[in-house]
Amino acid sequence: MQIRILVTGGTFDKEYDELTGKLFFRDTHVEEMLRLGRARLDLSIETAMMIDSLDMDDAGRARIVAGCRSARERAVVVTHGTDTMVETARALATAALQDKTIVLTGAMVPYAFGSSDGLFNLGSALSFAQVLPPGVYIAMNGRHFAWDQVRKNRETGVFEPVEP
Amino acid sequence: MQIRILVTGGTFDKEYDELTGKLFFRDTHVEEMLRLGRARLDLSIETAMMIDSLDMDDAGRARIVAGCRSARERAVVVTHGTDTMVETARALATAALQDKTIVLTGAMVPYAFGSSDGLFNLGSALSFAQVLPPGVYIAMNGRHFAWDQVRKNRETGVFEPVEP
Amino acid sequence: MQIRILVTGGTFDKEYDELTGKLFFRDTHVEEMLRLGRARLDLSIETAMMIDSLDMDDAGRARIVAGCRSARERAVVVTHGTDTMVETARALATAALQDKTIVLTGAMVPYAFGSSDGLFNLGSALSFAQVLPPGVYIAMNGRHFAWDQVRKNRETGVFEPVEP
Amino acid sequence: MQIRILVTGGTFDKEYDELTGKLFFRDTHVEEMLRLGRARLDLSIETAMMIDSLDMDDAGRARIVAGCRSARERAVVVTHGTDTMVETARALATAALQDKTIVLTGAMVPYAFGSSDGLFNLGSALSFAQVLPPGVYIAMNGRHFAWDQVRKNRETGVFEPVEP
Repeated sequence: MQIRILVTGGTFDKEYDELTGKLFFRDTHVEEMLRLGRARLDLSIETAMMIDSLDMDDAGRARIVAGCRSARERAVVVTHGTDTMVETARALATAALQDKTIVLTGAMVPYAFGSSDGLFNLGSALSFAQVLPPGVYIAMNGRHFAWDQVRKNRETGVFEPVEP
Repeated sequence: MQIRILVTGGTFDKEYDELTGKLFFRDTHVEEMLRLGRARLDLSIETAMMIDSLDMDDAGRARIVAGCRSARERAVVVTHGTDTMVETARALATAALQDKTIVLTGAMVPYAFGSSDGLFNLGSALSFAQVLPPGVYIAMNGRHFAWDQVRKNRETGVFEPVEP
Repeated sequence: MQIRILVTGGTFDKEYDELTGKLFFRDTHVEEMLRLGRARLDLSIETAMMIDSLDMDDAGRARIVAGCRSARERAVVVTHGTDTMVETARALATAALQDKTIVLTGAMVPYAFGSSDGLFNLGSALSFAQVLPPGVYIAMNGRHFAWDQVRKNRETGVFEPVEP
Repeated sequence: MQIRILVTGGTFDKEYDELTGKLFFRDTHVEEMLRLGRARLDLSIETAMMIDSLDMDDAGRARIVAGCRSARERAVVVTHGTDTMVETARALATAALQDKTIVLTGAMVPYAFGSSDGLFNLGSALSFAQVLPPGVYIAMNGRHFAWDQVRKNRETGVFEPVEP
């Protein structure tokens, strides 16, 4: 089974700039994470953008929708910042990419910082993408949610179920 | 959805004894891994044993079968050494625990050593356990395999599909 | 030999706040670093403040001088942000704490981020503090510098010798 | 100031072989550790051997003595397993390399395992090597010991002072 990974940045891929003391984006860590996970999947990785999800706008979402639409794979994992992940999931659902299973995931702590949930979430998202029926989902905290049945609780950093 | 995690040891949980220079087992790292992964699942964790899977024998497998049988959860993840994981999967399949989804997983490198595939595999196994139909599976390398369609390639350390 | 460690914050001790995505200070990591380094020194650790060294002002430097002056140990290691470490070293030298060996050190990357120079620098600073004659020094990059013979090169992040 | 690093293996450099589950030696991690420590020292690194110090014999010690003797640097750091570090220190002292400062160091946990004392010890040993007078020393646990005033306590893994 072939899976497309569409990278958009988010906390997942943030790094620490030791000269400025600020967080920034360079290259994605997804390949390195897949090596660490000894993943043996038929994957193609595409970096759509490298941004903080607070900076995600309609144009950005349109590019993510286009990236998912043009992917020849039926399973797509989108790495995305957690703050606006639900909004991007909605944009993808609205686009009605009917035969595709699209799973968004992210991380609360940058992978490069050593105590990240990113590796766990990537393993989870890739697994859900292989077995869930077509639709748009969020995979966080070891769980999966339909796009319209989830929100991020900003007090706790946890994704929670909501009534659609 | 409730999930039982049955811990049996394996590379997953090995540690380095700095006085003897040897690897050994102490407590499982599964709770710590779940914290790192920010897992919010309804889990109960049970340590059945803490052994190298090369030391797993029929009595040990019988205890794993009994642990899965008595679990009230319909989804069970078994952490297990990779060397004889397929044999334990067969024992579980033979036991015909009909309505349960049982997923075995493990690691090639101890979690405590910092560059482990364990966190990726745990995220993967917990996800497969939530969505696969009843049966016995192995989750390694980001993939899932029915118990009778997989072997560990000892040259490469990779789990591969085989004809049943 | 007794050594005082005076903690003032700096990159050394920064952490990532997963709810805000910002760096912040909580408790110092110095004890944890000493455990990791298996240090068996007669140490007393005192947290004077927990601040970014860009926020260090005259009042802060006066507290560091007072902390060094009142320390009964003849060897003192001061953990400090790198940006204004040289200025604090000058304040300490001006205070003429004559019989004390004072070594300032810091880190370019937070200890908590896993790829830090902090553990190397702490081992270095504690060692220099035990054997250098009284005076005020900076220990960074594996080297030691008299307080008036060093500057931080802000392009490279490296401490370099300068003519006094 | 120029420093020679003479690598002989030891726990410092052990790695985990994920196919056999055993510890082994490949290349030294010293260069990587120096990068992580942002060391800016005038160093030359020479690998004399890569062995467990329990396997160190007279021929091996003779090579270490020869390596220290032929080094044009007056400061030498020898990385060495902890179990027989004191014996090698004695061989170096007996060889009477009169104008050289030789510092042996090692680690209780392999650097590659993420929770190692190796980086702390390397920072410490390089610092002591720059300022101690000629002689043969052991740098462990943040301390330095003259070669004939130290032993490894095998119960605790700690280097302790003894009467010469």
